[in-house]
Amino acid sequence: MVKLEGIAASAGVAIAPAFKLEHPDYTVTKRDIQDIPAEIAKLDEALAKSQQELESIKERTRQELGDKKAEIFESHLLILNDPELINPVRDKITEDSINAEYALNETAAQFISMFENMKSAYLQERAADMRDVTKRILTHLLGLTYVNPAEIDKEVIVIAEDLTPSDTAQLNRKYVLGFTTNIGGRTSHSAIMARSLEIPAVVGTKEVVAKVNNGDLIIVDGLDGKVIINPTEELLEQYKHKQKVYQEQRAEWNKLRDEHTVSKDGVHVELAANIGTPNDVQGILDNGGEGVGLYRTEFLYMGRDKLPSEEIQFNAYKTVLERMEGKPVVVRTLDIGGDKELPYLDLPKEMNPFLGFRAIRLCLDRTDIFRTQLRALLRASVYGNLRIMFPMIATLDEFRNAKGLLQEEQAKLASEGIEVSDSIQLGIMVEIPSTAIIADQFAKEVDFFSIGTNDLIQYTMAADRMNERVSYLYQPYNPAILRLVKMVIDAAHKEGRWAGMCGEMAGDTTAIPLLLGLGLDEFSMSATSILPARSLISKLSKADMQELAAKALDMQTNDQVIALVNSLDV
Amino acid sequence: MVKLEGIAASAGVAIAPAFKLEHPDYTVTKRDIQDIPAEIAKLDEALAKSQQELESIKERTRQELGDKKAEIFESHLLILNDPELINPVRDKITEDSINAEYALNETAAQFISMFENMKSAYLQERAADMRDVTKRILTHLLGLTYVNPAEIDKEVIVIAEDLTPSDTAQLNRKYVLGFTTNIGGRTSHSAIMARSLEIPAVVGTKEVVAKVNNGDLIIVDGLDGKVIINPTEELLEQYKHKQKVYQEQRAEWNKLRDEHTVSKDGVHVELAANIGTPNDVQGILDNGGEGVGLYRTEFLYMGRDKLPSEEIQFNAYKTVLERMEGKPVVVRTLDIGGDKELPYLDLPKEMNPFLGFRAIRLCLDRTDIFRTQLRALLRASVYGNLRIMFPMIATLDEFRNAKGLLQEEQAKLASEGIEVSDSIQLGIMVEIPSTAIIADQFAKEVDFFSIGTNDLIQYTMAADRMNERVSYLYQPYNPAILRLVKMVIDAAHKEGRWAGMCGEMAGDTTAIPLLLGLGLDEFSMSATSILPARSLISKLSKADMQELAAKALDMQTNDQVIALVNSLDV
Repeated sequence: MVKLEGIAASAGVAIAPAFKLEHPDYTVTKRDIQDIPAEIAKLDEALAKSQQELESIKERTRQELGDKKAEIFESHLLILNDPELINPVRDKITEDSINAEYALNETAAQFISMFENMKSAYLQERAADMRDVTKRILTHLLGLTYVNPAEIDKEVIVIAEDLTPSDTAQLNRKYVLGFTTNIGGRTSHSAIMARSLEIPAVVGTKEVVAKVNNGDLIIVDGLDGKVIINPTEELLEQYKHKQKVYQEQRAEWNKLRDEHTVSKDGVHVELAANIGTPNDVQGILDNGGEGVGLYRTEFLYMGRDKLPSEEIQFNAYKTVLERMEGKPVVVRTLDIGGDKELPYLDLPKEMNPFLGFRAIRLCLDRTDIFRTQLRALLRASVYGNLRIMFPMIATLDEFRNAKGLLQEEQAKLASEGIEVSDSIQLGIMVEIPSTAIIADQFAKEVDFFSIGTNDLIQYTMAADRMNERVSYLYQPYNPAILRLVKMVIDAAHKEGRWAGMCGEMAGDTTAIPLLLGLGLDEFSMSATSILPARSLISKLSKADMQELAAKALDMQTNDQVIALVNSLDV
Repeated sequence: MVKLEGIAASAGVAIAPAFKLEHPDYTVTKRDIQDIPAEIAKLDEALAKSQQELESIKERTRQELGDKKAEIFESHLLILNDPELINPVRDKITEDSINAEYALNETAAQFISMFENMKSAYLQERAADMRDVTKRILTHLLGLTYVNPAEIDKEVIVIAEDLTPSDTAQLNRKYVLGFTTNIGGRTSHSAIMARSLEIPAVVGTKEVVAKVNNGDLIIVDGLDGKVIINPTEELLEQYKHKQKVYQEQRAEWNKLRDEHTVSKDGVHVELAANIGTPNDVQGILDNGGEGVGLYRTEFLYMGRDKLPSEEIQFNAYKTVLERMEGKPVVVRTLDIGGDKELPYLDLPKEMNPFLGFRAIRLCLDRTDIFRTQLRALLRASVYGNLRIMFPMIATLDEFRNAKGLLQEEQAKLASEGIEVSDSIQLGIMVEIPSTAIIADQFAKEVDFFSIGTNDLIQYTMAADRMNERVSYLYQPYNPAILRLVKMVIDAAHKEGRWAGMCGEMAGDTTAIPLLLGLGLDEFSMSATSILPARSLISKLSKADMQELAAKALDMQTNDQVIALVNSLDV
């Protein structure tokens, strides 16, 4: 038995055998070849193997999950046998005397790009299928071993160095009961995705990949950040009990799904959720969320070879707005840079990317990118209750410049006769200290604030939240942070605006009593945190929490504030 | 004629021919050799060439600068001819069959390390000589071209990609009339050193190295950040006039050297200087400084192969305290990490070094390094008016931990019977937003604050001050920054403490009226800025400036505040 400590990234307890997920290298280089018939034979062999694999996966999926889930593999087979794809590959090999993998890659890239630019959402999805099929054929051409997380077909705990957004998006909740990684923190993408998928997860264990063999029995304790490899019988029983207690707790919470969020003394606050893709909306509806408090649009820009077109964006925004049926949807404009890179933008390497050319700074420079997004948002606005939010605003000038671009695009659409909602709220993320400190000035010009605590804490404490050597400085309850939050909320209310929070802190049970006391209007969190938060708030009196917050604001350290909140009797 | 724009890094106008300074690569690798006699001959030839060079430099220096200045080269010749150095090199080549440059490097490293650990300051300086001589011999062994900036012997403008602290330390003010570089900003080390040496400088021109040939006539306009290559006769006359006007202005300022710094309405404030080495003290005395507001001790740790011993440090601190004759000397403990690396500490590369493991964060972890510095400081404290300051304090816990280590070392010294001053003030840099925001809590425990604006602005605006793409966010007059400064000053005064500032802003003529109005007690700046600042303050009424500051605090943007100050009639 081995016990590892990590960071509790997503609540719950999962118990299952280990499944190690490793990524091969798909880099393709161009080579001149001499023996053309041999190269064609290599291609045919790879196609045949892919065909065989897909047929067997399709059959297995059909038996276990039904016809509907198996359809995707039928589409893959159609692509694999489409002469429009395969013939150009053969021609390239023959005419240009180049290697099969290069010819395949080039041809597929053209198709993918074509599909991505089509107006129909259905055809856009075909680009993803084309990408998967291409990878499968390349795997055989390059002699690699390929594990698509979507193909996992029995109950497992996934073990990985780290998980990319596309890995987590493909995890099948039916079979992947939990996951654990070597790297990452509570605010890394894999952790955020785990909460959105409601899969128990422990990240940042440093060594789980090295310590685990495929098939080992694993306990992932996402409540306390522990991973146990091959537990003793006694420990296994303890954890099965812990799992049962947690599941009962969740069942209790689920009863609050259709309730309003109201404090013990009758004050209503709004509980919304953070999402990354239109697929995440289901989680909000399942968990009784009252809106989308943060739609991170950067996922639309990631995992592709070029910028998403206006159509791709319009479809995504429209889908989310429609599915939320008039509930508020706060869309954050592109927040790229920092730890989120887009290879196709070819931005220069920076010494300190978190203090660099990112988010609104980049958008105000690359107005071509920004205007496309603003147009897509404005066009989608008529399908629901849209609120637009700019990230990383540090000065009033930046806000005014961004707003100016939005108004220009709005005027252009009007002149084209395209309808735009006339009730779009326009707000900013408050994640830079300067903005919190002069929130009173901003409140005269914005419709709302949403406090982004992950970055706000990082900058206020001058400590990279991804750097383990300074992680002790990531202090959400430091009185300095609470005072900044208070400045923002007070400034909003003085001008009749609302103030929300969309950082990790909004869903944190230690922070919620303080935030309620400080007067926060909207809490946006992982969908799975909504019901526990609603339950907690229903037991708190806002008047009492105001007193609690006042005490916390006058304390000296993070630990003192934690002790103060822990002394509450709820 | 070519005109370049750059950043005005040090005031004044310099006109002289160009001298391009380029650094060769001294990397030495170990090689097995076959022909030992040939390798010995190679060594002898390098020694002979070095001998010849040194004799001619010595003679030239003697004639032009006198016997005293020529002594250094006499020492170099003694080292070069010392059999204790050279024989072990020959032995290594012969016995180990290795190349001459490797054998030399190894042997010299042993001597350098030995000298550095000796108690005598005289012998410690021999380490630097040994390093220079080794480089000279290596230059010939490796077939490189070596230009020691100390050897420049006619009036020039130095042109370089960038200047290291050791380059600038070696610049001879008699001959180097100005310099200009491709990279760097107003707060880069070369800029800070230029101001301390009182050499006009323009940095960050991006392309001056490519545009200039050795011997071109160069104008460096350190007042307006311009560099002119081969000016027209007309422009040359204009700049000669500008130079004369500036020199007259300086002569006017110099009359204030022995005056106190007093506002028009009779309020005294203290004008101190920032220094990097004991050599900089002369500049403070020449410019009428009232103390050392910031002694950056990291230069003691840089440009060497290992940590400086307690003796090396003690000697440096004692020298500064003695030469300042009882005037306050604020010594900042080691601020390494971020953009200042120490190769011999072998710290892991960080994604965002400015938000990383640096300064007090490193010292609280590597207490061996920290305790040595604290001991050296405590022992030196009896030689003057010492104030100790911790950098990058983000939480009260960090301050308490650092203070605890200081008290432990103090107790140890007492038990060893070593005398320590009992009136050492203990303060912190305020350069992290969290610390400014809860300055009221810190003021209960520290003796003083010194606001480090370079970092405070960088973190408050979340913009790397070295990154040109976000340099528009380095806004010292942003109302958010002014509000933080006010929080710190008010908190200090409430508890009867004093508040100073040691960032670039303290010497900035736009900031001074605001800082006077906000109640700042001590302004620490480049020595050359002291007299202009004293002159400016004598023309300002503190009462009026309080009104000015109140208006600025309620403004919305950096530009509005600049316009407000510019409207002053001084």
